[in-house]
Amino acid sequence: MIIIGERINGMFKDIGKAVQERDPKPLQEWAKKQEEGGAHYLDINTGPSADNRVEAMKWMVEVVQEVSDTPLCLDSTDFDAIEAGLEICKKPAMINSCPAERPKIERVFPMAVKHNAALIGLTMNEKGIPKDAENRLAFAMELVAAADEFGLPMEDLYIDPLILPVNVAQDHSPEVLETIRQIKMLANPAPRTVLGLSNVSQKAPDRSLINKTYMAMAMTAGLDAAIVDANDDDLIEAAATADILLNKNVYCDSYVKVFKSR
Amino acid sequence: MIIIGERINGMFKDIGKAVQERDPKPLQEWAKKQEEGGAHYLDINTGPSADNRVEAMKWMVEVVQEVSDTPLCLDSTDFDAIEAGLEICKKPAMINSCPAERPKIERVFPMAVKHNAALIGLTMNEKGIPKDAENRLAFAMELVAAADEFGLPMEDLYIDPLILPVNVAQDHSPEVLETIRQIKMLANPAPRTVLGLSNVSQKAPDRSLINKTYMAMAMTAGLDAAIVDANDDDLIEAAATADILLNKNVYCDSYVKVFKSR
Repeated sequence: MIIIGERINGMFKDIGKAVQERDPKPLQEWAKKQEEGGAHYLDINTGPSADNRVEAMKWMVEVVQEVSDTPLCLDSTDFDAIEAGLEICKKPAMINSCPAERPKIERVFPMAVKHNAALIGLTMNEKGIPKDAENRLAFAMELVAAADEFGLPMEDLYIDPLILPVNVAQDHSPEVLETIRQIKMLANPAPRTVLGLSNVSQKAPDRSLINKTYMAMAMTAGLDAAIVDANDDDLIEAAATADILLNKNVYCDSYVKVFKSR
Repeated sequence: MIIIGERINGMFKDIGKAVQERDPKPLQEWAKKQEEGGAHYLDINTGPSADNRVEAMKWMVEVVQEVSDTPLCLDSTDFDAIEAGLEICKKPAMINSCPAERPKIERVFPMAVKHNAALIGLTMNEKGIPKDAENRLAFAMELVAAADEFGLPMEDLYIDPLILPVNVAQDHSPEVLETIRQIKMLANPAPRTVLGLSNVSQKAPDRSLINKTYMAMAMTAGLDAAIVDANDDDLIEAAATADILLNKNVYCDSYVKVFKSR
């Protein structure tokens, strides 16, 4: 299971302020802290309030790389900002994200190939997120076809079937599980799957319980990666345990520690 | 999700002693305690040390029914003991269990039908437990055929694919998940599925973490019931949450409380 730490995002107040003031400390602290928690990638998002997202992204990538070797997941709807970040990433990065819309596919897939980056593709287009697995899969197939067309290795395509909050869109959560299961059968080798997991528990009282339970469930369906709170120990323990129970890592009594140290 | 409380079993010292001394108190206390924890059935097992299992089972059923209306799951390899218990059960009970062996099938399936009881069938025979899903499914198909032959309603057949401890038989745990998934497609209506869940974590240091994670995973595959520690709050919370995320119960903020009060 690949853990992508969600915390270096301008949507969080401390990061938003740090980006605005160009104060590297909060970003660098969260980079180290998320690594210790168990993150294998660090999501980097300027947030909506950054005045110049290209410059902000470059600065964020630079200051995080000063203290961390962990690969980065560049997260923006501004593809120029992502490209500027990719150019200075020291390790192969991940792009977050591209919907199943033709002009955006034509912009982002070649950029991923050029920079040897992985790419998160979303099962949605300009009309929105479908409710059922069948229509989510139709978008997944478009993304798989685009990977073929532009020469992105299938293992570098991470398809995100877009989980919605269970307290307002409960019928989506089993559909997302079924979508994940079927995505893994779309091609050989299979594309990978990813979720912005924390979304499932938005505004629910016990977020950690819902997050960790859905994590184990989605991994059973075939989830390969998740963008999460990497410092939620219960969640990381659930991911480590599900990996063991799927026989993906070898059992030892200290398997949680091993998972976090990878 | 159907929770079968495992605690009234002579394998536990306090129950073994109580059965021997015919002291109803420990059994009655565990009956109430497991109900409060979230049990929908109470497993009743004399344990191997009872001198007369028929008499012991009858006594156990009687004293538990004095304080509890919760249906019972009569658990023994001695089918005479189970039959004696069935005759005095006030509510439709569950029989735990029958392997996929012909003479035992011929003894137990008609007994279940006669007493309107549900029946746990095991995917094993006298030669043991198969390692892979395919061979577990072959036994499951024998059990489904037996239900047809003897007139047991398919919803009353609970097939147990037999999970082994992950620390010694790790390759079994994904096979059991796949077995559950495929059992649910064997007939229409589908047979139900059940696990003796606590077995997955035998002798592992963090049993509760492994149990609750595997519970959510197995429910994703289609698990309907589990024999568990009904007083492990984390486990019951995981079961309640997975039911919500599978859209089987309607979300409300207090869904764990609702689950436990059913």
